[in-house]
Amino acid sequence: MTISRADCVALDADDPLKHLRDEFVLPEGKIYLAGNSLGAMPKAAAAATARVVEEWSGQLVGGWNASGWYGLPLTTGDRLAPLIGAGPGQVAVGDSTSIAVVKAVSAALGLRPERRVIISDLANFPTDRYMVQGLAKALGGYEIRDIGTLDDALADDVACVLLSEVDYRTGDRYDTAEVTARVQAAGALMIWDLCHSAGALQVDVSQADFAVGCTYKYLNGGPGSPAFVYVNPRHLGQAEQLLTGWYSHAEPFAFEPDHRPAEGIRRFLVSTPHVLSYAPLNAALDIWERVDLAQVRAKSVALTSLFIEVAEELCAPYGLTLVSSRDPERRGSQVSFSHPDGYPVIRALADRGVHGDFRAPDILRFGFAPLYIRFADVHDAAVSLAEVLGEELWRDERYQRRLAVT
Amino acid sequence: MTISRADCVALDADDPLKHLRDEFVLPEGKIYLAGNSLGAMPKAAAAATARVVEEWSGQLVGGWNASGWYGLPLTTGDRLAPLIGAGPGQVAVGDSTSIAVVKAVSAALGLRPERRVIISDLANFPTDRYMVQGLAKALGGYEIRDIGTLDDALADDVACVLLSEVDYRTGDRYDTAEVTARVQAAGALMIWDLCHSAGALQVDVSQADFAVGCTYKYLNGGPGSPAFVYVNPRHLGQAEQLLTGWYSHAEPFAFEPDHRPAEGIRRFLVSTPHVLSYAPLNAALDIWERVDLAQVRAKSVALTSLFIEVAEELCAPYGLTLVSSRDPERRGSQVSFSHPDGYPVIRALADRGVHGDFRAPDILRFGFAPLYIRFADVHDAAVSLAEVLGEELWRDERYQRRLAVT
Repeated sequence: MTISRADCVALDADDPLKHLRDEFVLPEGKIYLAGNSLGAMPKAAAAATARVVEEWSGQLVGGWNASGWYGLPLTTGDRLAPLIGAGPGQVAVGDSTSIAVVKAVSAALGLRPERRVIISDLANFPTDRYMVQGLAKALGGYEIRDIGTLDDALADDVACVLLSEVDYRTGDRYDTAEVTARVQAAGALMIWDLCHSAGALQVDVSQADFAVGCTYKYLNGGPGSPAFVYVNPRHLGQAEQLLTGWYSHAEPFAFEPDHRPAEGIRRFLVSTPHVLSYAPLNAALDIWERVDLAQVRAKSVALTSLFIEVAEELCAPYGLTLVSSRDPERRGSQVSFSHPDGYPVIRALADRGVHGDFRAPDILRFGFAPLYIRFADVHDAAVSLAEVLGEELWRDERYQRRLAVT
Repeated sequence: MTISRADCVALDADDPLKHLRDEFVLPEGKIYLAGNSLGAMPKAAAAATARVVEEWSGQLVGGWNASGWYGLPLTTGDRLAPLIGAGPGQVAVGDSTSIAVVKAVSAALGLRPERRVIISDLANFPTDRYMVQGLAKALGGYEIRDIGTLDDALADDVACVLLSEVDYRTGDRYDTAEVTARVQAAGALMIWDLCHSAGALQVDVSQADFAVGCTYKYLNGGPGSPAFVYVNPRHLGQAEQLLTGWYSHAEPFAFEPDHRPAEGIRRFLVSTPHVLSYAPLNAALDIWERVDLAQVRAKSVALTSLFIEVAEELCAPYGLTLVSSRDPERRGSQVSFSHPDGYPVIRALADRGVHGDFRAPDILRFGFAPLYIRFADVHDAAVSLAEVLGEELWRDERYQRRLAVT
């Protein structure tokens, strides 16, 4: 093997991010490569959550002001903004990614009233597609066009394009600057879904029109932590979104009978934030505040490249096919392989303490969170993968039966 | 005074719900009459929340199955259902009340496609109105009609009527059975907002078409705890709502390209639940499970009647006007008075440890949560109100200055 485990241990010793691993609770003796599904817990999350519970019990309704609950969607948004290349007053945190899609798409449609096509992508996580379908059906008169080749899809009837920077299945990454420029040159608006890129690489939304994303994957915000929506400042005060709840009102506490939209990013809020769910996210942002995203990206590229190299070398005889791009520029912090027996392989790997996940029909998906995954972990995971495939454990009839009942 | 403090203490001793007060954290030496804004914390909420944090740290992504996170919107919905007169499989818990309004109204409009009027009410909490306004504007071709007199407003062009069972300002309560019957007789669909009634009285949604509500007021779910939507079983499988996220798909984990709606109440979910925010709510539901709502309502009527009686007797000289209905049947668990100096009065009361709240222009609002408010508290609060008004503390210039800077 070109790269030995000892080499990996040496890489870990030189890793400028190595001190961050200690900020997270990681399962003893396991290698967690599903952080692209749900990120590991910051150690500080427990105390941060307990603090909100304490605020509630002590301050009761007074906590909305005294503990800053009311402001959470925007204070958290301002903290998250630098991680996606945005500035203050451009990001609102709340609701779910699905709801954020409706905010962004409805706002985009309003800005291009004469255009009746929304471009989506089969590579989008399905909920993005579903939300657009529900919205288009309700509004009537809209066509949803699959992207195919972007140039074929882009025409002067396209209002907006919704794409995921990183494909949740393959891990492939768009050249966002190039795509954004082409979309905007065609007169359409660009909406990026950053669920699989925020916290994994140097996202730059500054040219995008809108962006949405979740905070529970690479950003470590916890199960179902609130989502975010980014609005380019050139649209603030102009764009109107459909979900005009009281938090988006110019004066929420005036209790006026009619909606009057707030001027800034507050127009992209809906209503009362799920206060508890912001606590771990803000604990995670305390860590992210100290992180250099260039180092995160460099390590991510190194981790994913290492995994591809070692896994391909060790698993060459076993029918494993790389799905992700071989070019690190075109890849997120995730490596996907296909294998006809993908599901039992992932199960057998989990039994050996290596946690990836499976996406039908045959994809093995491994996410590498640069804040806490080590080079040695990557090496060990690739070795385990080769062992599982080599021993053909998953072909064993008793093992298959055991899988069937668990 | 007809009713003495000693009488109230005796009433407390006989209160069949008195043991429940011990289940909540209540501020020492304060009388918390803003539980209709944010309910007090169940003592068990802290441990319930810590447990979810523990699940996350130990199970990571496995928690979605192992700890039942995935099922939370419906398991919590089934637990909440009996509190509003619903059955299992009829209530989905998630998102916010504002989002729930969009689910219910969009579903109702879809069931009455030929009708283009939505009746709302100035007595609705503004966000309900704002959400309907945003939806109607996006859909186009809809008229929003204020209720005025229901009979005048109801015509054969009305698709649905959205009303709050209990008015957030006045505390007045609709006769839901009677109104529902009239609305449905006119061929329209009835949607009730239960924010100020769930947990305060014996809600009965069984004849309604849809209902929505929050869980952080009388239900004690915590700041920003998830909302609920009820769908009458006759509409399940028929009604379609606009926000078609992946949790509303017939097979969420099939990751199909196109949305295919789930059959049952799952169609009214959107997406990934805010897991942490369900924990205190479920701790509260552990208490609610043991509560007889008939006793809750009886105590609520007694508490509010007592407050009106004592406050009116003691404050007779001070220009206090009852806003809430004098008929307990037409009143929620809330008493509102108006007074020209409402705001400083509420502030001065808070300084004396009695927490109500103020709603412009002149309303003093007092909520009585029957699980933990005592008759003696009600008596003391009325006495404090009289003292504040009597001493005219709020007219004192220095006091006014102090209010202005805090």
